[in-house]
Amino acid sequence: MTHIDRPDGAKLMVNLQLAHGGGGRAMNDLLARLLPLLPGTPPLHDRHDGFVIEVQAWQRLAFTTDSYVVSPLFFPGGNIGTLAVNGTINDLAMCGARPMVLSCALIIEEGFSEARLEQVMRSMAVAARDSGVEIVTGDTKVVGHGKGDGLYINTSGIGILDPGVHIGPRWIAATDAVLLSGDIGRHAAAIMIARAEMNFSSTILSDTAPLHRMVQDLLTANIEVHCLRDATRGGVASTLIELCESANLGISLQDGAVPVDDRVKVACEILGLDPLYLANEGRFIAIVAAADADKALAIMRQHSAGQAAAMIGTVTTKHPGVLVQAGRYGTEQIIPMLTGEQLPRIC
Amino acid sequence: MTHIDRPDGAKLMVNLQLAHGGGGRAMNDLLARLLPLLPGTPPLHDRHDGFVIEVQAWQRLAFTTDSYVVSPLFFPGGNIGTLAVNGTINDLAMCGARPMVLSCALIIEEGFSEARLEQVMRSMAVAARDSGVEIVTGDTKVVGHGKGDGLYINTSGIGILDPGVHIGPRWIAATDAVLLSGDIGRHAAAIMIARAEMNFSSTILSDTAPLHRMVQDLLTANIEVHCLRDATRGGVASTLIELCESANLGISLQDGAVPVDDRVKVACEILGLDPLYLANEGRFIAIVAAADADKALAIMRQHSAGQAAAMIGTVTTKHPGVLVQAGRYGTEQIIPMLTGEQLPRIC
Repeated sequence: MTHIDRPDGAKLMVNLQLAHGGGGRAMNDLLARLLPLLPGTPPLHDRHDGFVIEVQAWQRLAFTTDSYVVSPLFFPGGNIGTLAVNGTINDLAMCGARPMVLSCALIIEEGFSEARLEQVMRSMAVAARDSGVEIVTGDTKVVGHGKGDGLYINTSGIGILDPGVHIGPRWIAATDAVLLSGDIGRHAAAIMIARAEMNFSSTILSDTAPLHRMVQDLLTANIEVHCLRDATRGGVASTLIELCESANLGISLQDGAVPVDDRVKVACEILGLDPLYLANEGRFIAIVAAADADKALAIMRQHSAGQAAAMIGTVTTKHPGVLVQAGRYGTEQIIPMLTGEQLPRIC
Repeated sequence: MTHIDRPDGAKLMVNLQLAHGGGGRAMNDLLARLLPLLPGTPPLHDRHDGFVIEVQAWQRLAFTTDSYVVSPLFFPGGNIGTLAVNGTINDLAMCGARPMVLSCALIIEEGFSEARLEQVMRSMAVAARDSGVEIVTGDTKVVGHGKGDGLYINTSGIGILDPGVHIGPRWIAATDAVLLSGDIGRHAAAIMIARAEMNFSSTILSDTAPLHRMVQDLLTANIEVHCLRDATRGGVASTLIELCESANLGISLQDGAVPVDDRVKVACEILGLDPLYLANEGRFIAIVAAADADKALAIMRQHSAGQAAAMIGTVTTKHPGVLVQAGRYGTEQIIPMLTGEQLPRIC
């Protein structure tokens, strides 16, 4: 909307037009209203094409990008803005990096309300401030009605890796412990329920949360962390299968070890879904040296997002590239990667 | 599309489905087909959440982001992929940085053909290779039919700033020379003609081009460069007005100094547009110390994208924040910023 200042201070609200993405006066005015909402705005106010970062001697940086197309934009526990900040922070954290700066690029559909945009930006500001990161550069595009879905957000991010931190699928080793930072499926369940307008008596909130502090605590405590991965699209199952394939090792899940909240179980039963494939936005897999597993779990459980952390399996050479679930009668069942996803546009 | 291998080696082509964005097997297969097309793919093949960069002692980095929503996706002289690589390279170049790495995040509309996606990715690969940058991290989302427009691409980028390089609106000074790297309006004219399906006898090609080498040559030659800005959305006029406002100084354009190709003039006359507001994707404004203007122009003209480089005006304290055009009878006319843009979705 355009704010037209009235003598009494009230504002006339209109919806966003194509002109707001055109690089002219309308876009400049929109940015002048929105940018003060974001932390790290002094560099944004410089209205230059990019942001300059100073880094110290021989540091390594992590660089990541994600576009967020979640539907609906607002859901129990968060909105697309929270997700866009936490999600990119988490991608950096999964590299073992301390998140430093983010970019924010908006694709707005013509007719989207500026009030909702402000709400999203405020959520981004809060999420960034809570995590100690700055949003330092951005972009705004407006597309015609029917060429978007309200709002899409891309955030890219840069983080700093401390010396000696080497995290990735290639470091996974046989006998490693597979840890999960909490119960699964809340984010997908929250989205499903919001989308279906179902009335569950107890509301399930998205698990969206920044994970970098939990990761930093593991690294600071000298836990031998080999690989980290947040279990977003495709859920814990797809994430683990990807890791099995990348590392050319197998993972055996213990029977009943993956924590699932009762309300998520009920939602899954009603909707016919398997929680192992449900997307999470505040849960990660940590593959650590077996000897460090208990110490790592104790550290994770000190964080609110890690209270239900559990060891869920072990890395093995027995079935390279394959994820199996141990059954209660000693049998082992292969868990396949889904062709698509149970639920599209979850993030 | 999914490639279904036939005995004779032919491929059955289908269009992209929501499943291709779901994080499961379909997405993994799609990425396995597309990633080899991009330079810098070894890190991408690691399938980790981000990319790690090593930087030297106390270096400064430039960080930038842009989403590309150009319509149509393919136009004379390039496509959305060329634009996404060159555009972000240029944003880094406008900071005075040497572009190093890019990210690539795709938002694909369901039903978009994989053959077209491959074509775009190949163009990105060629553009990146030509400019010596690597695409090191990425993301793929698929949205439903009618929730996008074929393909949107976000590229973010990191570049390295050499010591002593300080470029930005705050360094603009009175009496500085305002240089323009070439004739204007080709990109917007090419898009307009492609969109209107007009048949001009002589085709106007988009000016999309990487500008970092021209900028590096200016810096290496110790030209006293105060500010650089590519004249994209809103054209040369809006770009200069933004700079006037940021620097709180005025700029006076010389009469007839802005080069415009005859074919672009004709297109503008037919369509009733002012070339000064037309978007360019391979042209930039360089504001340099007046004493260095001729030397800078000589350097710019050595580059194919800079052959028509010209001095177009001067920075002045006379009308702070305002861009004026000197007329042929000694009068001066204020050039306003447009409210929107002459042509939406130009980049």
